[in-house]
Amino acid sequence: MECVFCRIVRGEAPADRVYEDGSVVAFLDVRPLFEGHVLVVPREHLPTLTDVPPELLGPYYAVVRRLAGAVEAAMDARGSFVASNNRVSQSVPHFHTHVVPRRPRDGLRGFFWPRGRYRDAERAAEVAAAVRAAVSADGAG
Amino acid sequence: MECVFCRIVRGEAPADRVYEDGSVVAFLDVRPLFEGHVLVVPREHLPTLTDVPPELLGPYYAVVRRLAGAVEAAMDARGSFVASNNRVSQSVPHFHTHVVPRRPRDGLRGFFWPRGRYRDAERAAEVAAAVRAAVSADGAG
Ligand SMILES: [Zn+2]
Ligand SMILES: [Zn+2]
Ligand SMILES: [Zn+2]
Ligand SMILES: [Zn+2]
Repeated sequence: MECVFCRIVRGEAPADRVYEDGSVVAFLDVRPLFEGHVLVVPREHLPTLTDVPPELLGPYYAVVRRLAGAVEAAMDARGSFVASNNRVSQSVPHFHTHVVPRRPRDGLRGFFWPRGRYRDAERAAEVAAAVRAAVSADGAG
Repeated sequence: MECVFCRIVRGEAPADRVYEDGSVVAFLDVRPLFEGHVLVVPREHLPTLTDVPPELLGPYYAVVRRLAGAVEAAMDARGSFVASNNRVSQSVPHFHTHVVPRRPRDGLRGFFWPRGRYRDAERAAEVAAAVRAAVSADGAG
């Protein structure tokens, strides 16, 4: 089984392309949340955000930023939702960002999900310390 | 009314910080989807993604990428959700990216929202043409 986004990038699978350059391709999601819902993918098969090489982040997100503006303009939208799933809920294991036009009262209601609170300030501080330790341990600088 | 994220960046409002550098600050969301849910913000008050200057995109998303890895590691998660709301559903008008740890069967079920289809191939081609035209018209290159 070959990666469907790699096949789209190479032009072997059909897609309604909206942008492409040397490192990035963008096309319509065939199952849109709303018309104009676009997927932005690196040409290279990189599974998740943490697999994207640092030097590609600037060029890649410059395209995501342009598409956010373009999708809002083209669809006469009031805003946009820009999101990536890494591994969990990721339908195609080729990193991609969804750019979705949004309008007030379009039915999505933000994240839609129940949001909690930390048990207490101490628990929040513990979690923050764990994340800080993981940042320090990642060797990225 | 002053921007709460600007107040956090300046240290005038409390937050559990997990990372900071010269241009970016990250801290725990006080209403997390799950423990370890982090917000990544530029120090500068920039309302939405399209307001972020191109030269900040690389450094900013390098931090988002690091936090995605760190949050997964710290929370022993299997993946992450990385998302920004621009204008619609944006609770604080200071650009921010949510980095949320994910686990299989954690209750979020991906985007959660009903996804549609284009009426026909012609309608999809029309929408793609409109987005392409907006990309061409944005003057970004
Ligand atoms: Zn691929
Ligand atoms: Zn997807
Ligand atoms: Zn602000
Ligand atoms: Zn938010």
